[in-house]
Amino acid sequence: MFEATVRADVLKEFVGVISTLTDEAKFIINPKGIAVKAVDPAHVAMVDLTMNAKAFESYSASDAGIGVDIEKLAEVLRLAKSDDKISLKFDEEKNKLVVQVENITRRMSLVDTAGMSEPKVPDLNLPVKVVAKTAELERGIRASEAVSDHVALIASPEGFELVSKGEADDYVSLNLSKKLLVELNCKERVKSLFSLDYFSKMIKAVVTSENIVMNIGTDYPVKMEFDIAKGNGHATYLLAPRIESE
Amino acid sequence: MFEATVRADVLKEFVGVISTLTDEAKFIINPKGIAVKAVDPAHVAMVDLTMNAKAFESYSASDAGIGVDIEKLAEVLRLAKSDDKISLKFDEEKNKLVVQVENITRRMSLVDTAGMSEPKVPDLNLPVKVVAKTAELERGIRASEAVSDHVALIASPEGFELVSKGEADDYVSLNLSKKLLVELNCKERVKSLFSLDYFSKMIKAVVTSENIVMNIGTDYPVKMEFDIAKGNGHATYLLAPRIESE
Amino acid sequence: MFEATVRADVLKEFVGVISTLTDEAKFIINPKGIAVKAVDPAHVAMVDLTMNAKAFESYSASDAGIGVDIEKLAEVLRLAKSDDKISLKFDEEKNKLVVQVENITRRMSLVDTAGMSEPKVPDLNLPVKVVAKTAELERGIRASEAVSDHVALIASPEGFELVSKGEADDYVSLNLSKKLLVELNCKERVKSLFSLDYFSKMIKAVVTSENIVMNIGTDYPVKMEFDIAKGNGHATYLLAPRIESE
Repeated sequence: MFEATVRADVLKEFVGVISTLTDEAKFIINPKGIAVKAVDPAHVAMVDLTMNAKAFESYSASDAGIGVDIEKLAEVLRLAKSDDKISLKFDEEKNKLVVQVENITRRMSLVDTAGMSEPKVPDLNLPVKVVAKTAELERGIRASEAVSDHVALIASPEGFELVSKGEADDYVSLNLSKKLLVELNCKERVKSLFSLDYFSKMIKAVVTSENIVMNIGTDYPVKMEFDIAKGNGHATYLLAPRIESE
Repeated sequence: MFEATVRADVLKEFVGVISTLTDEAKFIINPKGIAVKAVDPAHVAMVDLTMNAKAFESYSASDAGIGVDIEKLAEVLRLAKSDDKISLKFDEEKNKLVVQVENITRRMSLVDTAGMSEPKVPDLNLPVKVVAKTAELERGIRASEAVSDHVALIASPEGFELVSKGEADDYVSLNLSKKLLVELNCKERVKSLFSLDYFSKMIKAVVTSENIVMNIGTDYPVKMEFDIAKGNGHATYLLAPRIESE
Repeated sequence: MFEATVRADVLKEFVGVISTLTDEAKFIINPKGIAVKAVDPAHVAMVDLTMNAKAFESYSASDAGIGVDIEKLAEVLRLAKSDDKISLKFDEEKNKLVVQVENITRRMSLVDTAGMSEPKVPDLNLPVKVVAKTAELERGIRASEAVSDHVALIASPEGFELVSKGEADDYVSLNLSKKLLVELNCKERVKSLFSLDYFSKMIKAVVTSENIVMNIGTDYPVKMEFDIAKGNGHATYLLAPRIESE
């Protein structure tokens, strides 16, 4: 059983974090809230997301696992204004998710979850922690997009850098010295290279959180964490590194 | 003879109602105003439109029928701000329509009206009348567009519904109960299916009228009526039904 | 040596005037400011542009000529808000231009200037001077774009006209009588035809100057002049005429 109402902007943020990586996902529902663990089709990135029952206007659920077409859910949300209340209901008999936005009812068939393996979130020992402002990272990404498909995340005891190298020795960097960061915990220089496309989509999925926590190593995945739903939910992204061929 | 000035937003609305269905149309001009009757190239829909001389800032005309390239006229109107005054003049000698927006003069050749048959507006006996808010219908259409190319208009003594069915038993409905409607005159349930594309374009052509009057039957055309030019003009759309193959 | 800081909007205007005609240009730098003379690849148009050191927040330079990739410079500027300070530095050792916008550093390779001939600005004796409002010309251009690829500039002692002729004897004209012009110095009627695409891009590059000075003849190039950087810079465009085939 699952029946809930939630503000459109809260559900949009939740759905946005998932849609960055995948078109369909299994919502693991229990009386305390909803969790989603998913990988992208290329197995380069992973999301681990939870939203507490407190993030909802009303929430009532027993244990259930439903396969949601994320694209369809996003479509319905586009009809809603930020403060519209969305009602969600799992129709077990017909195996449908029924979504209501004001006078509009959208009934959508569910996706078979049989083939969806629940990914295991690896336990990584990443030596460096950087907390940066979301807006700064977004600007750095826009600058990188002009020169390359890749971005290096570099941290040192002095600060944090996004660096992209283009053709003909062109390069672009966002340089955040220690005082421009919210937090920096770094004993030695680390550097990993990532797909700019994935990194960019992940940062753009951060809608309400002012800051992003990043855990970084050298040639290791990056782990990014941020709150959603005013602290009533939490998201973790993992992104695998690219091996530098230069 | 035809010479008139009109506010840009009034003429834009008039032209918009026609351009939904056709690229060229015969303007039937007389001393009391302008009328247009036109069908779309596929003969699925019809418009019957009149604008009274009172809708104009100045108006002076004898009987005339001129073939107007609606696209060209729309182009000139894009140069104008809402409250700009547009001057229209039929140059009989050169067979041109001369349009002026501020210091800009656009002279456009007319379209031959010989091949334009004046469509007869059929006299339909539609059992149900629904008056709904334009904004509500627009939202229902946007929801429908995500799942199907068709939309069913359904009325019952309890209310009015827009329903679209998609693949895999997905569906979307806008449900307006009697109290959410401006008016409902319905003794028994009726239902007709329409092309969503046509229905959508017609509803979007309603710019200033807060409400739309719809006359509906079962497997019958829908007749939609609304005012333009602050009541100094009136538009009627007719749209043929699709036969449900389900 | 070259090192300067400048408001983003001032540099954007400067770069916009050049990018209308060419993707790369030689910046001729000296202690008093920067000059650019360039022609478009088709040799139809020319720009002669200067920006005084006073237009910069800080400016320090010895004589230098650097080949700038205008597209790359425009890309970096898109990251900046109007009142951001842009820092520019010529790294002679590595032969790079280093641009900084807040915490972002963009290092770009320079273009070889060996192949760039410095165009000579011809000394034209154009009989007519027209000073018109930029906004009026923009509106006339938008109207012309609907009917033709060409535009005629026509001046007479009574006023100034932009005229475009389309198919089927359609035409559009912007008519500015003498009193709607800032200045008109014209003894006899002159007329020249131009590529609308070039003329349009040039007029759209005029961002801050309220007026444009045009010097016109019959079947002669048009010379357009306007200030940039609040009068601390000046731009001249020359555009070759098209010979009328009608």
